[in-house]
Amino acid sequence: MSRADINFDFDRAERIGLDEAVLAAGKTPAQITAILEGAAERQHGVLITRLSGEALASIAEHVRSDIDYHDISATGFFGPVRPVSVDGKVVIVSAGTADAPTAYEAARTLRHAGVGHEMIADAGVAGLWRLTSAMDRIRTFPIAIVVAGMDAAMASVLGGLYSGSLICVPTSVGYGVSDNGRAALNAMLASCAPGLTVCNIDSGYGAACAALRVLNSMGAMQGTGKKGKAL
Amino acid sequence: MSRADINFDFDRAERIGLDEAVLAAGKTPAQITAILEGAAERQHGVLITRLSGEALASIAEHVRSDIDYHDISATGFFGPVRPVSVDGKVVIVSAGTADAPTAYEAARTLRHAGVGHEMIADAGVAGLWRLTSAMDRIRTFPIAIVVAGMDAAMASVLGGLYSGSLICVPTSVGYGVSDNGRAALNAMLASCAPGLTVCNIDSGYGAACAALRVLNSMGAMQGTGKKGKAL
Amino acid sequence: MSRADINFDFDRAERIGLDEAVLAAGKTPAQITAILEGAAERQHGVLITRLSGEALASIAEHVRSDIDYHDISATGFFGPVRPVSVDGKVVIVSAGTADAPTAYEAARTLRHAGVGHEMIADAGVAGLWRLTSAMDRIRTFPIAIVVAGMDAAMASVLGGLYSGSLICVPTSVGYGVSDNGRAALNAMLASCAPGLTVCNIDSGYGAACAALRVLNSMGAMQGTGKKGKAL
Amino acid sequence: MSRADINFDFDRAERIGLDEAVLAAGKTPAQITAILEGAAERQHGVLITRLSGEALASIAEHVRSDIDYHDISATGFFGPVRPVSVDGKVVIVSAGTADAPTAYEAARTLRHAGVGHEMIADAGVAGLWRLTSAMDRIRTFPIAIVVAGMDAAMASVLGGLYSGSLICVPTSVGYGVSDNGRAALNAMLASCAPGLTVCNIDSGYGAACAALRVLNSMGAMQGTGKKGKAL
Amino acid sequence: MSRADINFDFDRAERIGLDEAVLAAGKTPAQITAILEGAAERQHGVLITRLSGEALASIAEHVRSDIDYHDISATGFFGPVRPVSVDGKVVIVSAGTADAPTAYEAARTLRHAGVGHEMIADAGVAGLWRLTSAMDRIRTFPIAIVVAGMDAAMASVLGGLYSGSLICVPTSVGYGVSDNGRAALNAMLASCAPGLTVCNIDSGYGAACAALRVLNSMGAMQGTGKKGKAL
Amino acid sequence: MSRADINFDFDRAERIGLDEAVLAAGKTPAQITAILEGAAERQHGVLITRLSGEALASIAEHVRSDIDYHDISATGFFGPVRPVSVDGKVVIVSAGTADAPTAYEAARTLRHAGVGHEMIADAGVAGLWRLTSAMDRIRTFPIAIVVAGMDAAMASVLGGLYSGSLICVPTSVGYGVSDNGRAALNAMLASCAPGLTVCNIDSGYGAACAALRVLNSMGAMQGTGKKGKAL
Amino acid sequence: MSRADINFDFDRAERIGLDEAVLAAGKTPAQITAILEGAAERQHGVLITRLSGEALASIAEHVRSDIDYHDISATGFFGPVRPVSVDGKVVIVSAGTADAPTAYEAARTLRHAGVGHEMIADAGVAGLWRLTSAMDRIRTFPIAIVVAGMDAAMASVLGGLYSGSLICVPTSVGYGVSDNGRAALNAMLASCAPGLTVCNIDSGYGAACAALRVLNSMGAMQGTGKKGKAL
Amino acid sequence: MSRADINFDFDRAERIGLDEAVLAAGKTPAQITAILEGAAERQHGVLITRLSGEALASIAEHVRSDIDYHDISATGFFGPVRPVSVDGKVVIVSAGTADAPTAYEAARTLRHAGVGHEMIADAGVAGLWRLTSAMDRIRTFPIAIVVAGMDAAMASVLGGLYSGSLICVPTSVGYGVSDNGRAALNAMLASCAPGLTVCNIDSGYGAACAALRVLNSMGAMQGTGKKGKAL
Repeated sequence: MSRADINFDFDRAERIGLDEAVLAAGKTPAQITAILEGAAERQHGVLITRLSGEALASIAEHVRSDIDYHDISATGFFGPVRPVSVDGKVVIVSAGTADAPTAYEAARTLRHAGVGHEMIADAGVAGLWRLTSAMDRIRTFPIAIVVAGMDAAMASVLGGLYSGSLICVPTSVGYGVSDNGRAALNAMLASCAPGLTVCNIDSGYGAACAALRVLNSMGAMQGTGKKGKAL
Repeated sequence: MSRADINFDFDRAERIGLDEAVLAAGKTPAQITAILEGAAERQHGVLITRLSGEALASIAEHVRSDIDYHDISATGFFGPVRPVSVDGKVVIVSAGTADAPTAYEAARTLRHAGVGHEMIADAGVAGLWRLTSAMDRIRTFPIAIVVAGMDAAMASVLGGLYSGSLICVPTSVGYGVSDNGRAALNAMLASCAPGLTVCNIDSGYGAACAALRVLNSMGAMQGTGKKGKAL
Repeated sequence: MSRADINFDFDRAERIGLDEAVLAAGKTPAQITAILEGAAERQHGVLITRLSGEALASIAEHVRSDIDYHDISATGFFGPVRPVSVDGKVVIVSAGTADAPTAYEAARTLRHAGVGHEMIADAGVAGLWRLTSAMDRIRTFPIAIVVAGMDAAMASVLGGLYSGSLICVPTSVGYGVSDNGRAALNAMLASCAPGLTVCNIDSGYGAACAALRVLNSMGAMQGTGKKGKAL
Repeated sequence: MSRADINFDFDRAERIGLDEAVLAAGKTPAQITAILEGAAERQHGVLITRLSGEALASIAEHVRSDIDYHDISATGFFGPVRPVSVDGKVVIVSAGTADAPTAYEAARTLRHAGVGHEMIADAGVAGLWRLTSAMDRIRTFPIAIVVAGMDAAMASVLGGLYSGSLICVPTSVGYGVSDNGRAALNAMLASCAPGLTVCNIDSGYGAACAALRVLNSMGAMQGTGKKGKAL
Repeated sequence: MSRADINFDFDRAERIGLDEAVLAAGKTPAQITAILEGAAERQHGVLITRLSGEALASIAEHVRSDIDYHDISATGFFGPVRPVSVDGKVVIVSAGTADAPTAYEAARTLRHAGVGHEMIADAGVAGLWRLTSAMDRIRTFPIAIVVAGMDAAMASVLGGLYSGSLICVPTSVGYGVSDNGRAALNAMLASCAPGLTVCNIDSGYGAACAALRVLNSMGAMQGTGKKGKAL
Repeated sequence: MSRADINFDFDRAERIGLDEAVLAAGKTPAQITAILEGAAERQHGVLITRLSGEALASIAEHVRSDIDYHDISATGFFGPVRPVSVDGKVVIVSAGTADAPTAYEAARTLRHAGVGHEMIADAGVAGLWRLTSAMDRIRTFPIAIVVAGMDAAMASVLGGLYSGSLICVPTSVGYGVSDNGRAALNAMLASCAPGLTVCNIDSGYGAACAALRVLNSMGAMQGTGKKGKAL
Repeated sequence: MSRADINFDFDRAERIGLDEAVLAAGKTPAQITAILEGAAERQHGVLITRLSGEALASIAEHVRSDIDYHDISATGFFGPVRPVSVDGKVVIVSAGTADAPTAYEAARTLRHAGVGHEMIADAGVAGLWRLTSAMDRIRTFPIAIVVAGMDAAMASVLGGLYSGSLICVPTSVGYGVSDNGRAALNAMLASCAPGLTVCNIDSGYGAACAALRVLNSMGAMQGTGKKGKAL
Repeated sequence: MSRADINFDFDRAERIGLDEAVLAAGKTPAQITAILEGAAERQHGVLITRLSGEALASIAEHVRSDIDYHDISATGFFGPVRPVSVDGKVVIVSAGTADAPTAYEAARTLRHAGVGHEMIADAGVAGLWRLTSAMDRIRTFPIAIVVAGMDAAMASVLGGLYSGSLICVPTSVGYGVSDNGRAALNAMLASCAPGLTVCNIDSGYGAACAALRVLNSMGAMQGTGKKGKAL
């Protein structure tokens, strides 16, 4: 596997306003190194997701030293990072402590794109007051990312109380019938509350990209998406 | 299929405090007729479930005339019915209008056993106020049967607000990923709220029997369950 | 089932900017009639979905006569309908002729909420030119609803060419492994293109509600969502 | 992940008569430590479940030393534990030796809530005498927790012989079609015996909480559940 | 579809001691007629399974008149039938009334091969006495066919009490998680009792053929299986 | 977990002619040790299955030294073993080299019960000659155990060429759609050849027990199954 | 639904050497009529698949009269049909009588493209001689389409005896675990024989198109595929 | 496990023009060693697949030293290898970097059979230009192997642009609903583009064998397949 085998989509941001990210899981250290070398040559910043500590350690030193690593989300920023240019638009609401890796993957993806966020954790409906007491704050944001596993009931309750864009991420938290997030996925898709949209299981990255698309729809993202600009 | 092939468990109530019921779905009119004739000879009251209007019409006239039929629950009472001896113990809470067949199957099963009920319908959490405004009333009952399809989020919210026995029945209401009640079933089993128990999909009969078992545990059922009496 | 059993969430629009709709499938004619009578008393317009021709015919005449029925989408407008106040924001792109019922369910839901739409049909990628030749037009809309069954490959291709909000609806079109829309659902959720969001199978209604949420995020919906207003 | 990210539901017992427990699986040692520090400040006793020996060893020493750990159930008691105030009400019947972790998780959850139990192990129906010879003893308890994997046939047999509350827990014991407990789960839900209720796979904790809810229904739990008291 | 397209395996009985049967479901009346004409020319008796009343009525009259039809099992004997030459070897035990079609399909298949049977119906373990009281009789047969749906717990209990060949047939009786017989199938395969063998769902025909194979192993079948004779 | 928690079914052989075996997987070394100690006291021979090398090493030395361990089948004989009293009755036919663990688990289970066997390996139908050239030999046995993974096509081909009892064991050999043996399981159950019976995935033990039941039916097993003796 | 909504891919044959076909299932009579009118205007021949007799009857008369309908395959030829220009290249081998609809759908698709075929029916391996006696004939064709349901074992056996292109079509023939063709699909994909390729369940059309692609690879198709011509 | 237990199909190439390969996964080092010793005696070259680095290291040294190992594909060539005799016929197109192991397994299998290939990597449709810019090159090959995971949309797009044989291999790349390649498998089988054929998940070996079969159909393979030669 040499760099000749790599054909990275470096123009994606210009085309659709979303950077290509490197999904480290499933790639060898040599593959990751080759992609990052290509990015370095173009002075192109890259977001790396699903980068475990062991994978990080086995990447070649000359690129690893330029990675800003974040433990709980298993993400890395390589090379230049955009400054925060959009804030106060996206809130991330998560149901339990074990949902943190996914919630923070979303947060880091937003940050890499120059978008700030607010995090509201541990708001699962088994203790309904935790969610209802946060609703006034949540309603000040036009976009909400909802992160929940198990029964994902928080998504439906929020869907009945909030009018903005609701981007749901089921997580693989739970055991038995939780089935690695499928119970949460199906509950979110089958929600009795209208207009919820859903991303792949554990895909904080996907939820953040969906939020960026809504920001594109809102005209909030200035410097990106020239070619494919929606508005 | 003659009556010689039928071996009905007429002593079930004496043994475990629960009558055997006749699940009409999957049985021929001749089979149902034979069972009811056997019951008539012993002057034994029988609850019939999943008895469609067409099935009812095809049962032999001499037994059909003794069936007290209830349309929306598709249940029939054949022969003598116990008077109501227990009341104010069981509340049935359902999420949407389409859950009515299952909710009323539970209600009719309780009634056949001499137990009254209260019904709170259309309390799904997409309109959270419908559930929260009913909580004071619900809390006056020691046993709640929860009937919900789709995401079944109502079960989890109720589970965080109510301390009594919570018997959940997923329904096959919904389409797509609802998957004939499997999404609701899994969400109820994977609930973030503690101590929910779950019955088979659409099994209002099963939920009512579970409530009768809790009443047995409470010592509330007087005249039944002599042999297998729990307390 | 009397009207006393119905507890319709008439204030939903005020709360979250989305009307409650009546999912006719699974409800009896008596139930639908009772809900519509309640709406008529409040002079409240109601969207009815999954209303088959036979179901329509069995609704009580005094309410049926006020239903504006649309055949291919199986939807009805009962009572007053909002004028179109938002237009040019939402495009509906569908892959094949058999996806029309879902695409038109989305269109009718938008229309009931006072939102116009443009429809681009038969754009499946087996004939890629059908999609690429429409891209310039599609890019003029900030929100796209994508309707596709079978492999749903159109969603991924569009996701790589378009920067706005992408709301995907898998359809139950296809046979064998298409599995009533599950293959399309999973392909959309697992898409290699970033930021796609997905609704339940065949849920044109859900996709339209998600589009309305994005319009809420954009501040495009003026007269709705006072209480739960996001912005 | 700092303690600011944790929002523990410390008032759950007061609200619904059930303590919140810490599910250790899926949480980092830092998260568990932070939760326990919060509990220590409030002098609040906490039950920890799914706490493997390795996870225990990696928790910060100053809280680990206050954990009363139980090996086979992988549970820990942190801080004050209620005295046993209720006894002779709950029997735990398990089918095979490999079901012990789940059976003891239930037992420990009951004990943490101040409830005693009796354990009847290895009662699977392949040797029917093991169950039938225990029936007289089992019938003296108003509540039975049934723990079984594989075919879970013991639950159905018990359901035909016992009149009290039957709370079933499928276990992931077995291989092949046992499918990590799904065969047992489905057999319990589809049981030919009436009124069985079922919890998530391997959820001894859930079954114990369900038993506590029945004790609440019975009025047997004195000092808990003030706010949400059922009776 | 002419008779030239049919290539019936008329020598199967000679080869392996089991007649080929015609599975009518999925075949057109013309196809069934063509097969039976071919059999008539060779004076070859044929067993027809899954032959609904409507399918029977649409078969050409000149062959239909030679069919000995049995309603509840939906089977037909066409042409010559072997006399009963083996008896007292096979007992068919079924759990509930709705299992009768499968139990009788097995019985008719045995009869067509010249093997008698005894039927014990309604022996499901929800009323355990129904099975235990029949055990002395069941033990007099070297081969037992067990027919059960739902949880199929009867198979496991029988497996612990009986030492002969146990051939289990799950049925599609039940609803919800019964999943058209899959719950019963998996419970039988995962049975805690040793040495159960299992056939396809609702396959009374398959179970009878398996019993015939055991009779072949026993040397009980005299006139068949010359070429492939096992003993 | 003390020996008081163990309730081993030592009389199983007397009851149904099959020894209880210890399934080591899922049991702790302490549990296995306790069971074996109990057996030693009664001078009862025990078959141990799914006993990995690591599990073996962690069993207490005073019982481990009495285990006759067989590597590829992961089985152990503890204590006295019956002499071979039945031979020439059972042939084990396996499809590929990777099926050896399951084939040898069956062989060892037979041997522990005093039954000899013949093994025909690598007879998968991708090289059809490997199976057809062995048919004359296979036909000399009244009972065949068929062990195959992936598509399990060998079972169907054998089913068309052999008249004795056919006991099929799907194995988890293969990848992708093989799905840990489910593809083989379903193919065996759906076989176009009549009368195949099927055991749980990888259950060489179960297949051998089924063969012992057929030997019971044949009256070939002399010293076992007194109480429950079939013939 | 007007003709303006239809965007048929009439140039597909020119682009990839395969005509677009109309899948009638899921389309309304008005939609099918509109597509055929469009084809008639261009004098473009069209293959219609999954056209039931009832659907045929409800198509507008002025186009229906130009449909050459074939009953068992449920296909129609509309407008001009190519003469047979390629023959002796493709053999269709099917396992049982009930596989005929799929086998003939493949045959008709080939014929519409100007390709002849030979059909070998009822060659399932339960009677192995039916397949082996046909092998010499089958080997004279460079391409074989294999049509089988249930266990699909015929595909694997053929795969071990034949060296040409093997295109497998699982069918939904069978019941229970056959699961509408999924057992056959998985067995074909997991085959122990190398190099089998598989199409969607019941997709005779897909298999024929795959055969046409191999003919394209062979350079056997003269007048088609100019733009996208492979060779 | 001795060499006596191994029955390798050494004549497969002569019979069907495809060498038998050794699937190392699931075999013990001793089994692999025994097979290779047998091959060495016959001077028969063998392809080994799914041979991890650890498995390689544990094979007996005297055979391991003759293995030409390729890391990323986990394949080994043992003994003599055919020279390249066919080239310019097969192109391998893969969607992403993580698909490399499967793509190279196909490449190595082709190479072992004496067939050259061209590799086009990272052509996934999220960046559609990567595929469209390669189409002119791809069209020069009569056979294309398509390797893709996740949504596998590249296969459908290619299917609409390319007229030759399209052999699709889904990969287990992706997470959540990707479900170890099942989402890709189903999308490929349900493709809206006609005539795609599909192999088992991750089966680069199977795809290469399918390509060899098409080469057999084309008469391109000279020295193989004498007995079973198709043309």
